Amino acid sequence: MDTRALYVGRFQPYHLGHHSVIKKISSEVDEVVVGVGSAQISHEVDDPFTGGERYLMISESLKAEGISNYYIVPIIDINRNAVWVSHVESLIPPVKVVYTNSSLIERLFMEKEYDVRKPPLYDRSKFSGTEVRRCMVSDGGWQDLVSDATANVIIEIDGVSRMKEIAQCSLE
Amino acid sequence: MDTRALYVGRFQPYHLGHHSVIKKISSEVDEVVVGVGSAQISHEVDDPFTGGERYLMISESLKAEGISNYYIVPIIDINRNAVWVSHVESLIPPVKVVYTNSSLIERLFMEKEYDVRKPPLYDRSKFSGTEVRRCMVSDGGWQDLVSDATANVIIEIDGVSRMKEIAQCSLE
Amino acid sequence: MDTRALYVGRFQPYHLGHHSVIKKISSEVDEVVVGVGSAQISHEVDDPFTGGERYLMISESLKAEGISNYYIVPIIDINRNAVWVSHVESLIPPVKVVYTNSSLIERLFMEKEYDVRKPPLYDRSKFSGTEVRRCMVSDGGWQDLVSDATANVIIEIDGVSRMKEIAQCSLE
Amino acid sequence: MDTRALYVGRFQPYHLGHHSVIKKISSEVDEVVVGVGSAQISHEVDDPFTGGERYLMISESLKAEGISNYYIVPIIDINRNAVWVSHVESLIPPVKVVYTNSSLIERLFMEKEYDVRKPPLYDRSKFSGTEVRRCMVSDGGWQDLVSDATANVIIEIDGVSRMKEIAQCSLE
Amino acid sequence: MDTRALYVGRFQPYHLGHHSVIKKISSEVDEVVVGVGSAQISHEVDDPFTGGERYLMISESLKAEGISNYYIVPIIDINRNAVWVSHVESLIPPVKVVYTNSSLIERLFMEKEYDVRKPPLYDRSKFSGTEVRRCMVSDGGWQDLVSDATANVIIEIDGVSRMKEIAQCSLE
Amino acid sequence: MDTRALYVGRFQPYHLGHHSVIKKISSEVDEVVVGVGSAQISHEVDDPFTGGERYLMISESLKAEGISNYYIVPIIDINRNAVWVSHVESLIPPVKVVYTNSSLIERLFMEKEYDVRKPPLYDRSKFSGTEVRRCMVSDGGWQDLVSDATANVIIEIDGVSRMKEIAQCSLE
Repeated sequence: MDTRALYVGRFQPYHLGHHSVIKKISSEVDEVVVGVGSAQISHEVDDPFTGGERYLMISESLKAEGISNYYIVPIIDINRNAVWVSHVESLIPPVKVVYTNSSLIERLFMEKEYDVRKPPLYDRSKFSGTEVRRCMVSDGGWQDLVSDATANVIIEIDGVSRMKEIAQCSLE
Repeated sequence: MDTRALYVGRFQPYHLGHHSVIKKISSEVDEVVVGVGSAQISHEVDDPFTGGERYLMISESLKAEGISNYYIVPIIDINRNAVWVSHVESLIPPVKVVYTNSSLIERLFMEKEYDVRKPPLYDRSKFSGTEVRRCMVSDGGWQDLVSDATANVIIEIDGVSRMKEIAQCSLE
Repeated sequence: MDTRALYVGRFQPYHLGHHSVIKKISSEVDEVVVGVGSAQISHEVDDPFTGGERYLMISESLKAEGISNYYIVPIIDINRNAVWVSHVESLIPPVKVVYTNSSLIERLFMEKEYDVRKPPLYDRSKFSGTEVRRCMVSDGGWQDLVSDATANVIIEIDGVSRMKEIAQCSLE
Repeated sequence: MDTRALYVGRFQPYHLGHHSVIKKISSEVDEVVVGVGSAQISHEVDDPFTGGERYLMISESLKAEGISNYYIVPIIDINRNAVWVSHVESLIPPVKVVYTNSSLIERLFMEKEYDVRKPPLYDRSKFSGTEVRRCMVSDGGWQDLVSDATANVIIEIDGVSRMKEIAQCSLE
Repeated sequence: MDTRALYVGRFQPYHLGHHSVIKKISSEVDEVVVGVGSAQISHEVDDPFTGGERYLMISESLKAEGISNYYIVPIIDINRNAVWVSHVESLIPPVKVVYTNSSLIERLFMEKEYDVRKPPLYDRSKFSGTEVRRCMVSDGGWQDLVSDATANVIIEIDGVSRMKEIAQCSLE
Repeated sequence: MDTRALYVGRFQPYHLGHHSVIKKISSEVDEVVVGVGSAQISHEVDDPFTGGERYLMISESLKAEGISNYYIVPIIDINRNAVWVSHVESLIPPVKVVYTNSSLIERLFMEKEYDVRKPPLYDRSKFSGTEVRRCMVSDGGWQDLVSDATANVIIEIDGVSRMKEIAQCSLE
């Protein structure tokens, strides 16, 4: 097996920070597995998009760059850290390398003897899921924070109006 | 099918605000389905009563009014917004209309093409589950906030003492 | 509390045997709780109807008889016999009496000190869910085995065609 | 949206029958979504391979043909037919067309108004998961029944010895 | 760490075959971890006893022999072979050796690099859970097949009458 | 049955406060069942250790004191208060007495007619799981707050470095 690496995120939504990381990883290793975490969660203020919608954002964005050495795998939460690595292993093509900034994910894969690496940097003050969602609600320039392909997906699924409605304060 | 409508709540407990809403809906449509949400949760500070106890509060209160065009259905949480409407659909008699104040529930049913309506108003500063529970703990006049039938159910199941014990601060 | 009794079944579908039992129990006790077991299962050869569809069959049939001293409660499987009684208790209005022909349900409620009774008899060679389902597939006289109200529900939801499709042998 | 179609299977393992179907569908529609059913099951006599291993078999086989207009999505079982379509919808890019030979899957998607079609035919007496697994246990020519890419994946993960061990009769 | 070994069974009930195996293993290694599999299942024809009852049978039997170098751990099913080893690892004290006759358990632990061994032999034609349960139903000499300590537990919990009732054929 | 009592905790980690309580209870009743709550949770800031690691801390500590009249039972969360007592009952040897400081656990067991007692006191300002975890992160004298046996387990599993890594702030 040549080098295949895993990168996991929630991608709510997939933004240019994620995009720059995956582009770089995909150029450094033979294949990159993109794990879409909390795939079962959607329609929540911090998690507006379904696993399938996020799958589409990522694949459309990578195709638009001419990148094809990737696998996208939705990963449903299992809520038990001690079995989470096995859970992921059972759903993805085998990898030996894991890129992550999460100290928990780093620890879990290190306890299973993986080669864990820091992903390439990007400007976190500018690109974050929180910021994109905030801009969607306030009609700010969220489209500048995501790839054109992602913007198209969000528009096609009427994502901004969903985001706004979910963010409303509800009378119980 | 004549008009059958759904109204969902947690009813912790069923109070006079809920009661006025259901009475009105039941007079406007042919049949009302009352979904008892988070039916599996009980003995928590914000959710003291079991699904069965809440079922009883609602049915006794409606019978006492001579109302009979209702269905009561306990609905266990599924914790996945994207499948929640299907989950509800599989447990209730079919409906075309949904009454809700929750912007999330409104959004979820709208994405499935339901006719979603605002329920009749009631005085939310006076009637709320939070307020009834607070009054139960402090021996305030909680009985003025619920129907006689609901008060009887709470007394019969020794609900006030349960509420007080659950609300105590515990040493871990 | 006057006498309230539980009767649990899968009701796939609700047939005249079930109907005669519930009519008799409802005349012998003050209130009868009808538990709709395996409420989450549907679209299977032995379990074609949803919990909500079965709820409707039962309530329409009882209303047509002028019976009103009943509660209908969908009960989702928990697949652990040792906690099943607690699970049921948490979803239904409290009961002291349980009617059942199942030796397992009898055992489980007896271990929790319930008054368990045999339900009234009916002609099991004639009325059974298996038989009704078989007749639906073969266009036999299934309507003679169920109440008019149940037949109407099945027709309204296009149940016969669903039953036939599910019963087909599939190429894997 | 142009035409995007769903095809679901368990792919235990992915064989030349599946392969011919997906090749044909991928040439008839704009994009094909391949749902890997029962993704969480593995190491069983009828389900030896993990979701990730099956993902790899399919993607390697399609890449080897120069096909790229596909999405592969592992789908974990939810064991409730009435919510299964919503579950699938939440995990995949949106589709309007579903190809299936299963009468249950056909029924479930038809109740949700999908355009359900029969997939292209292949020789089922020759190609079936059951047959491939049988040949693996008996050292028959299983490699003739799968694509070269799939055979390579099975060899790389030592799949034949796993298959043989799982198929052994165990002393309890 | 000195040698600590795992032995997993369902123990429905714990019989003299199991007992001889654990006695031998406990004399060969420093400590033995006894995993009580399917701990959540009970009141079924093939699984009559709860996890707690089985825990008691094992500990009372080992104490009666003066054995104390053991750990007993109830293990609830997770129904996913690919994560089962991680699930077990998270619940038990760490082990390096596993004794099992099951080819599946052997395979699962071998894939995780454990030292898997065959447990000592016993007369399987004489001692088996199936046989003990059969004898309990038919009032045969089941007490000769289990330790005195196990027999006492079964009598104390009224296990024979439970076994007989569960084994009855039920009218649906 | 002589007196057997239950004591439930999370034991994250097992400290000298827990230890003094169990020593006292074990001298007052015939046998003590130690329930290890939230057994499935680990690698979290407030819950760093697995169920198996906590099992080992407790058993090693009690063995070091020459105590042997105990059972240790990992208890996985079920997240439904109304069935939690049944869940525990099915996993442990039968008890009649429960020691707890939690007002919720007290309430739940009282509703099932148990004899609920306050456990012996210890200095909660000094000994608490929170405090031990805090000291582990800051390299304070956590070893003075736990038994030698527990300290050995934590060192053997490299628990301090796990605790520190989990406690780090992560970039999302």
